[in-house]
Amino acid sequence: MHSFLDFLIEENMSMLTDFYEFTMCASYFDNKKFEPATFDLLIRRLPKNRSYFLFAGLEQVLLFLRSMRFTDKHIAFLKAQGFKDRFLDYLKEFRFTGDVWAVPEGTVVFPNEPLIRVTAPIIEAQLVETFLLNTVNLQTMLATKAFRVVHAAKGKSVVEFGLRREHGVDAGMKVARCSYIAGFNGTSNVLAGLTYGIPLFGTMAHSFVMSFEEELASFRSFVKTFPNKSTLLVDTYDYLEGVRKASVVAKELEKEGYCLGGVRLDSGDLAETSNKVRVFLDEQGLGYIRILASGDLDEYKIAELNSKKAKIDVFGVGTQLGTSADMPYTDVIYKLCERMGSKGIFLPVMKLSEGKVTLPGRKQVHRLSDRTENLVKDVITLADESTEGEPLLVKMMAKGKITYDLPSLEQIRQTCLENLSRLPQKYKKLRGAPTYPVETSRKLNSLIESLKLKLKN
Amino acid sequence: MHSFLDFLIEENMSMLTDFYEFTMCASYFDNKKFEPATFDLLIRRLPKNRSYFLFAGLEQVLLFLRSMRFTDKHIAFLKAQGFKDRFLDYLKEFRFTGDVWAVPEGTVVFPNEPLIRVTAPIIEAQLVETFLLNTVNLQTMLATKAFRVVHAAKGKSVVEFGLRREHGVDAGMKVARCSYIAGFNGTSNVLAGLTYGIPLFGTMAHSFVMSFEEELASFRSFVKTFPNKSTLLVDTYDYLEGVRKASVVAKELEKEGYCLGGVRLDSGDLAETSNKVRVFLDEQGLGYIRILASGDLDEYKIAELNSKKAKIDVFGVGTQLGTSADMPYTDVIYKLCERMGSKGIFLPVMKLSEGKVTLPGRKQVHRLSDRTENLVKDVITLADESTEGEPLLVKMMAKGKITYDLPSLEQIRQTCLENLSRLPQKYKKLRGAPTYPVETSRKLNSLIESLKLKLKN
Repeated sequence: MHSFLDFLIEENMSMLTDFYEFTMCASYFDNKKFEPATFDLLIRRLPKNRSYFLFAGLEQVLLFLRSMRFTDKHIAFLKAQGFKDRFLDYLKEFRFTGDVWAVPEGTVVFPNEPLIRVTAPIIEAQLVETFLLNTVNLQTMLATKAFRVVHAAKGKSVVEFGLRREHGVDAGMKVARCSYIAGFNGTSNVLAGLTYGIPLFGTMAHSFVMSFEEELASFRSFVKTFPNKSTLLVDTYDYLEGVRKASVVAKELEKEGYCLGGVRLDSGDLAETSNKVRVFLDEQGLGYIRILASGDLDEYKIAELNSKKAKIDVFGVGTQLGTSADMPYTDVIYKLCERMGSKGIFLPVMKLSEGKVTLPGRKQVHRLSDRTENLVKDVITLADESTEGEPLLVKMMAKGKITYDLPSLEQIRQTCLENLSRLPQKYKKLRGAPTYPVETSRKLNSLIESLKLKLKN
Repeated sequence: MHSFLDFLIEENMSMLTDFYEFTMCASYFDNKKFEPATFDLLIRRLPKNRSYFLFAGLEQVLLFLRSMRFTDKHIAFLKAQGFKDRFLDYLKEFRFTGDVWAVPEGTVVFPNEPLIRVTAPIIEAQLVETFLLNTVNLQTMLATKAFRVVHAAKGKSVVEFGLRREHGVDAGMKVARCSYIAGFNGTSNVLAGLTYGIPLFGTMAHSFVMSFEEELASFRSFVKTFPNKSTLLVDTYDYLEGVRKASVVAKELEKEGYCLGGVRLDSGDLAETSNKVRVFLDEQGLGYIRILASGDLDEYKIAELNSKKAKIDVFGVGTQLGTSADMPYTDVIYKLCERMGSKGIFLPVMKLSEGKVTLPGRKQVHRLSDRTENLVKDVITLADESTEGEPLLVKMMAKGKITYDLPSLEQIRQTCLENLSRLPQKYKKLRGAPTYPVETSRKLNSLIESLKLKLKN
């Protein structure tokens, strides 16, 4: 009652999971199933208007796996839920000891491709499921959406302004992180600036203007604080009148040797108003003043504004990005693909539920490019198949230790931009993009057929 | 780099805000604007297929306001962003000292009604904006969605299973909290069970079944752990075959004096399959075994399943609820409604931007009911108007101290259920519900007209 966030600490994340993970693990324990198994994390299908995903969230996954523990408080709670002492004794000593292969953060990926592959004693591999799904779902969805916005902006600046409508405090941080990875210029989120070093952007609110008797007085007061980089919100009462007043302030600043940074429009027909504002500012000799636009923007509206030749220099993108409003989730799943057989040999397994078939065995993804490094197609193969193309899954953890140099946010951003520059334009269309070819290798196909046959008998 | 969540602590929440809040506050400071102002938090409009909101998130808002601080680390970061020492000295000593009125958590509310009213020195009232919006947006959206699901289920059990696709770790906790408030029977989220005391539910995953050579062996192994309350997932290979095996296990359990809890269906046409499963179980004398269904359920699908007379006892609801997929945000805003005039008297203010007009002055909401306590209409009045009806806004904080007994989660749930029982059925329709009447009082209307006239001159 007297705290509102104390429970969101790293050591509690082992409990941020579905109850059935514990039930299943207790049953594995009671049945002495300690042998290893392999799970794939993948996205089952593309939602409407998506033709690729930008994989994100891996850093948090690896750090979670490394730090996973159960405290006395957790054990006591699980005991109260009816779990037996022997299983709880096991949890007290729990460490994640598995091997993890994954696609590097910032990689362009497609449905059915394993993105994270976990091989570990089955209890461990099972217990990590929910956190992995939660983390990859959110960040991959956000990075994908963010790059669509960057692409639609065609080189104009884009900044993330969505904190107020993002789904809580963790999502707020992850939106800033993932949009920066995908090429955004910065965020309004101050804690993301402090935590991740992402550049901060901000303007002013209508309430600031309204707290003064006169709009002009509010502008004059505002620019005192940061005379060289202020952006004035001009549409509180009437945008043309507002811009006229902003130009008065800009000229006053010029006399003191300063430059007004920009004006912001937050309502109305932005294509029309931005053009009128640009004409007015240019006539006043204020060509250097940038126009920032906001107000329920997303990739579709930005593309439309660009096609209408709106005179906007910076797009402030909020709610639609921060909630991935047209696709607020992905079909990310975590599926068993091999189990240890009675003879100590891994056996590939697959699921046949209606519409939910999975690919069996330990797998790799091979990416084929043309001579200019443009992506041509991906082939999902068995892990040990030697075949052409660049293998996407890289070893990230061995026996619970991170064996991979975690890249900085700037390096992940670089990986993203390189990946996206190699993705042919046709796949970047906001709507109606063709399907990128993802094939399964001949060896994998024969395995599938033989398992289907076996399961149907 | 070596932590993935360390920054999400209560003392950092003062920095989880938009950069412009600091810029504006620095400007207020530079201009010696320390006088109080009043802001309203409200939702501007109803999204598609919503006819009311269930207000939630207040507890976190009040605890945040009480704990808000800036640490040395925050101050150093803001200094590096160019803020001046005198303003930073002010922030070092910052405490929220304002008065807060709000609607109790769990109240049914409508667009344009002030839900939280903050009167504080304008710097304080401004700085809290982003966190308040983020908190109320998420929880109100979720509680509203959750009650729609409860309503559609018509008395059948509903449990929250969405953690894997919810937007990060904070959202995961808030979905469990808000769906419980709105009448859900429980959640799968173990940390929510530990933190909030919400009842936990869980079944088993396909991977458990697949980790065994034979489905029957997996069922027998699973029920060993909790022989009296297990739910078996029967559709990994073929649901009718799966149910047949579940019935074998149920009869084995009966011999030992135990009862199988239920079977779960997670794919296919749930209306058809649940009926077949029910018939089979009843024929076997296993009428006590409950049928749990899951798989992309939401209020629309549950209503459809009920109308098709599906034989489902428990609905497991995940992604669609947890992301509020058909409405992943609300139009929640925080608007200045009065400022201190030069004569030390509060002056009402309003905004006239296209499509974004706000209501001026310090306000109250009066709710009118009929003799059976059913809601009839709401009237937004000025705060000091004495008028009929029950006032919704209650004093929650005075001079920065919480003056309200924070209710327990169970009490909030009770408030919710009482509120919803008073809302006439017609407003609970999932689609095409009529608009609940929210009027503005005559005094408020005259104020609006006089301000409009004044602003247009």
